[in-house]
Amino acid sequence: VNIKNTHLHKILTSKEELSFLMEAHNGISAKLAEEVGFQALWASGFSISSSMALRDCNESSWREVLDVLELMADAVNIPILLDGDTGYGNFNNFRRLVQKLEQRSISGVCIEDKVFPKLNSFVEQKNRLSQKEEFCGKIKAGKDIQRDPNFCIVARIEALVSGLPMEEALSRAEAYYEAGADAILIHSKKETGEEVLEFAQKCPSHIPLVLVPTKYYKTPTEKFKDAQIAAIIWANHSFRAAYAAIKRTLSNIYQSETLKEVEADIASMEEIFDLLQYKELYEAERKYLPQNT
Amino acid sequence: VNIKNTHLHKILTSKEELSFLMEAHNGISAKLAEEVGFQALWASGFSISSSMALRDCNESSWREVLDVLELMADAVNIPILLDGDTGYGNFNNFRRLVQKLEQRSISGVCIEDKVFPKLNSFVEQKNRLSQKEEFCGKIKAGKDIQRDPNFCIVARIEALVSGLPMEEALSRAEAYYEAGADAILIHSKKETGEEVLEFAQKCPSHIPLVLVPTKYYKTPTEKFKDAQIAAIIWANHSFRAAYAAIKRTLSNIYQSETLKEVEADIASMEEIFDLLQYKELYEAERKYLPQNT
Amino acid sequence: VNIKNTHLHKILTSKEELSFLMEAHNGISAKLAEEVGFQALWASGFSISSSMALRDCNESSWREVLDVLELMADAVNIPILLDGDTGYGNFNNFRRLVQKLEQRSISGVCIEDKVFPKLNSFVEQKNRLSQKEEFCGKIKAGKDIQRDPNFCIVARIEALVSGLPMEEALSRAEAYYEAGADAILIHSKKETGEEVLEFAQKCPSHIPLVLVPTKYYKTPTEKFKDAQIAAIIWANHSFRAAYAAIKRTLSNIYQSETLKEVEADIASMEEIFDLLQYKELYEAERKYLPQNT
Amino acid sequence: VNIKNTHLHKILTSKEELSFLMEAHNGISAKLAEEVGFQALWASGFSISSSMALRDCNESSWREVLDVLELMADAVNIPILLDGDTGYGNFNNFRRLVQKLEQRSISGVCIEDKVFPKLNSFVEQKNRLSQKEEFCGKIKAGKDIQRDPNFCIVARIEALVSGLPMEEALSRAEAYYEAGADAILIHSKKETGEEVLEFAQKCPSHIPLVLVPTKYYKTPTEKFKDAQIAAIIWANHSFRAAYAAIKRTLSNIYQSETLKEVEADIASMEEIFDLLQYKELYEAERKYLPQNT
Repeated sequence: VNIKNTHLHKILTSKEELSFLMEAHNGISAKLAEEVGFQALWASGFSISSSMALRDCNESSWREVLDVLELMADAVNIPILLDGDTGYGNFNNFRRLVQKLEQRSISGVCIEDKVFPKLNSFVEQKNRLSQKEEFCGKIKAGKDIQRDPNFCIVARIEALVSGLPMEEALSRAEAYYEAGADAILIHSKKETGEEVLEFAQKCPSHIPLVLVPTKYYKTPTEKFKDAQIAAIIWANHSFRAAYAAIKRTLSNIYQSETLKEVEADIASMEEIFDLLQYKELYEAERKYLPQNT
Repeated sequence: VNIKNTHLHKILTSKEELSFLMEAHNGISAKLAEEVGFQALWASGFSISSSMALRDCNESSWREVLDVLELMADAVNIPILLDGDTGYGNFNNFRRLVQKLEQRSISGVCIEDKVFPKLNSFVEQKNRLSQKEEFCGKIKAGKDIQRDPNFCIVARIEALVSGLPMEEALSRAEAYYEAGADAILIHSKKETGEEVLEFAQKCPSHIPLVLVPTKYYKTPTEKFKDAQIAAIIWANHSFRAAYAAIKRTLSNIYQSETLKEVEADIASMEEIFDLLQYKELYEAERKYLPQNT
Repeated sequence: VNIKNTHLHKILTSKEELSFLMEAHNGISAKLAEEVGFQALWASGFSISSSMALRDCNESSWREVLDVLELMADAVNIPILLDGDTGYGNFNNFRRLVQKLEQRSISGVCIEDKVFPKLNSFVEQKNRLSQKEEFCGKIKAGKDIQRDPNFCIVARIEALVSGLPMEEALSRAEAYYEAGADAILIHSKKETGEEVLEFAQKCPSHIPLVLVPTKYYKTPTEKFKDAQIAAIIWANHSFRAAYAAIKRTLSNIYQSETLKEVEADIASMEEIFDLLQYKELYEAERKYLPQNT
Repeated sequence: VNIKNTHLHKILTSKEELSFLMEAHNGISAKLAEEVGFQALWASGFSISSSMALRDCNESSWREVLDVLELMADAVNIPILLDGDTGYGNFNNFRRLVQKLEQRSISGVCIEDKVFPKLNSFVEQKNRLSQKEEFCGKIKAGKDIQRDPNFCIVARIEALVSGLPMEEALSRAEAYYEAGADAILIHSKKETGEEVLEFAQKCPSHIPLVLVPTKYYKTPTEKFKDAQIAAIIWANHSFRAAYAAIKRTLSNIYQSETLKEVEADIASMEEIFDLLQYKELYEAERKYLPQNT
C-alpha cells in the first residue's frame, strides 16, 4: 500500500473538505509547489507539452511525459495526478500507462472521453468524443490492472465542452463512476461556474467531483465549497507564471544588455542550492570520499 | 554546411562585436529567447539539471540532457551552444557527444577542464582540474570527429575558479586554442570583472574570449566591449526568473485559494497558443483531414 | 540531399531489378545484415517490439522505437526503411514522425491503412481499416513535411488481409500512389503468392510494388522477378533466428551446467570486437590520451 | 520487502548450493532464460552495449541501459543482477543508480573497482584500478541509500585481471565485504580456473564468491561446487548465440535469395505469440471493447 496514493484518494473523494491540486510541469515546479504547502500536484498535459515547445495534441510521446513525471515524483513527497489525455490510445495502451505510472510512484491518472490524438479543449476544434461504452471499458481495464487499491483513476467528461446537453454529461458521469472511476472531472469552458454548479447539483451525491476553474476563475471558491466539490485543480498557472516571467526578464536583458536591472527579481543561486539540497552532497562527499582525494 | 553553426562560430570568434548568448533550459525558454531577439542560446547545465530538480553534478545522464536539447533545437532557428560540463567522461565519451549534438542540430559545445563527474563551480568544493594534456587530447578528439567545419568547441578554463595563478590560466588558454578550441571561456567567481579583464589583457589577441558575468554582473558591459570580448553568456537568468515567478504565484494561490489575484501577472492561454502556432494545426487539419471526420 | 535516401528510393521503385530488404531490430542485427551484403534494412515493428518482450500493438511508444532506430542508423551505412505501423496516430503524429526519422538518418517509412493502435496482421483480429481519404491525407502530410526529396513513404495496403476484395485493394493502391506514396506494399496472409501476383498483374504498371513473403515463402523468388516487383522484404527472420538460437543455447547450458557444449556454436568475443571496431578505440587512446596516463 | 531481491540475495550468498545466473540483454532474451528454467539473470554490460552496436566502454548512457533493464524486469518474475561497470561515475552517480534500479525492480548491481569510463576487461588496455578506499566509499554509499534490505551489491575485483598480485585481490575482497558488499565477484582472464580457485581457497570462508567462467569455461563445474562458490554467471552466451545465428541465417538468405532453407531453423511466429501472450490480448479485447467496434 502506497501512502501517497491513499492521500490522493482521500483528496479526490472527500466531499466534506475542498482540496486543491497545483499544476507542475517539471521537477522544480513540483518541488516549489510542495515547498509552498500544496498537498497534491496536477501534472498538466498542456503545461508539460508547452514547456517542450510542443502543442497539446500528443506531439510528445507518452514515454517523454513519463520521463518528466519520474523527475517530478523523485522530487516530492506529495501525490501526483497525471492529466493523461485519452490514456494515449485504447484500453491496452491505458493498461500499460497505469502500470508505468505505478512504477514511477505516480498516484493517479485522469483520462478524458475523447479519441487519440487529442487537442487542447480550449481551442476551437472538431474533436470527437469516444463512445460511452468504450470509455467505460477503458476505465475498467485500468482499474483491473492497478496493483495498489488506492491508485486513482479520474474520468474527465468532455460532453459540455463539446456542446452536448447536460443530460449526456450526467449520464456519462454515472456510467464512468459505475465502471470504477474514483472521481469525475466535469469540464467546462464557460466564463462562469454556473454550468459546473448545475452539473454538481444534478449529479448523484455519492459521486465525487473535481473542477478546473481555468476559464471561470472569477467564481468565488466558496461556491464550490458549498457545492461539496471534492477538489479543485489550478491547472496551468505554474507554467503560465514561468512563461510570463521569462519573457519579461529576457526582454529586459535583451534591451539593457546587462543583468543589473533583473537581478533583484530573480531567484538567487543560494536559494536554489538550498531547495535542491546541495548541502547534503557536501556532507556525503565527506562521508564517502577518501580524505586525500 | 549548417548555417546555424556558421552563425554561432561568428558570434564566438568576432572580437569586433560583442555578442550575447541567452540561457535556455527547455523548449519554451528557447523559443521565448528567440522571440525576444537573442541571436544564440546557452543550454545551461545548471539550469537544465535544476529544472529536473537535480543537482548540477551529472545526476542526470547525458542522454536526458540530449533529449532536452533536441526539443530546444526543434523549437528555434537560432544556434545553441551546450554547456557540456566535462564532455561527460573521457575523449571517447566526448566524441560520441559531439556526434549526437551534430545530429540534433546543436551548433557547439563548451567543455571545462575538470574531471567527471563535475560540481557546480560556484559552490565550495574540491573538484580536481584535469591535466592540461588530457584536456587538449579531448579537444582534438572532438574537432577530429565533427562533420561540419563550423561546429564550435569552446574550452572553459577553471584554473582561476580553482585558485590557480593567472599564469596557469593563460598557459591553458594557449594550449587549448592550439589544440583546436574555437574560443576560450575564462571563468571567475570574483564579484568584479577585474580578474577576467586582466586575463583578457594578457591573453594573446588572436584568441577569442567568452565571459559569464553571473557573479560580476555589476561590471558595466562597456568594459567587456572595450576589452574586445567576443561574447557574453547570460548563463542562468531564464531559469532563475521562472523559479522566482513560480514561487511567488504559487504562494499567492495557496494563500488566497483563488486565481483572481494572479491572473493579470501570468501569460494568457492565447499568447501561448500563438507562440506555439496552434493556428498552423487547424489549417493542417483542414488540409489533411477528410471533411466528414 | 542524403545519399542513403536516394539509394533506398531507387531500391523501392526500380521495376527492372528485384531488391531485397533485410529485417533488423537493433544495432547489431543491422550491422550484421550490412556485413553480410544486404543493401537496405527493414526496421520491423514486430521484431523491435518482440525484442522488447512487448506485443506488436503499440505497447512501446514511438519514442522507444526511435531510440532503437537511432542506434541502427548509427551502426550502418545502408538505408533503413521503418515499418511505421499507422504512423502512430493521425496525420500530425505522422508529420512529427517523418521529421524525427529524417533527423536520425532513417531513409523512409512504411505506413499501413489501419487505425491506431494496431495489431499484428497475422493474428486473428478485428482491426478496422482507415478511411481511404484519411490515409491519403496522411501520406500527403508526410510528403509535404519531408525535407529530403528522396525520403521514402511506402503505403501498405491491408485490404486483402482484412478480407476486402481485390478491387478495393487496387483502388487504394492508385489513390495512395496518387497521394504521393513512393511505392505500394501489398500485404497478404495467403500461403501462396498467387494473391499478390494477381494484384501485381492488375495494378497499373507505373506503380512500384513491394512484397513481404513471410507467409508465402515457398513461392519461388523468380516469380516475383518476372512480375517486376521492385523489392522484397525479409520481414522478421533476423529476430526469429536469434530467438531460436537463444532458446536452444540456453536450454543446453541450463541442462548441462557448463559452457563446453555450446562454445563452438556461438560467436567468439574476438569476432564481436572486430565487427564493433574495438581496434579503432585503442588507436584513438594512443592518439588522444597522454602517454603517462 | 521485495521477494525477488530476497531470492537473489540467497542465490548470491549461499555457499552450500551453487546457483547460476544467465545473461540477458533485452526483454526477449530475459523471457527465454526464465522459460528455460533459470532462476536469475545477469544483465551484461557487454551484451547490452554490443546489441546496440556500441563498444563496452560506456558509449551508451546509463539511462539507455536503464531503459533496457526496465523492459527486462517487466518481462520476467525472476531477479536481475545488473553488470553495472563502475557505477557510472563516483559514489553519487552510484547512489542515483541504486535508486533507479530499485524503482525498476532490478534486484542488485555488480560494480567493479575501476575508474569511469571503463573498457571491456578482456581486451588489452591500460585501465586504472580505483583506489581501494574510494571503492569502499562507493559500496557504502550504495548500501546506505538502498531501501530494500535485500537489494544486492556485488563488488567485482579487477586486481588479477590488471596484473596485480593475489594478495592485493584478497585484501580488496575483505575490504569490500567489510564495506557492505553482499558478495565478491573475482574476475580472471586465465584459460583455466586455477587462479580463481586459489583465490577461493585463500579468501575468508564467510565471504560469498561469484565467478564468471567465460575464459576458463573448460574447467568442470564440479570444481566450483567443491570450492563452495555461491554462484556462477554465464556472462554473454545468450548474445553470442543470437549473433552467430543471425549471421548464419542472413548469409543463407543473402546467398539463396529465398527463405526456404532457413525456415526450419528459426522460431515460428506462433511460438513467439505464445511466449508473449497474444492470447491474453484477444481475451482483453473481448472484455474491454464494445461488441460493435
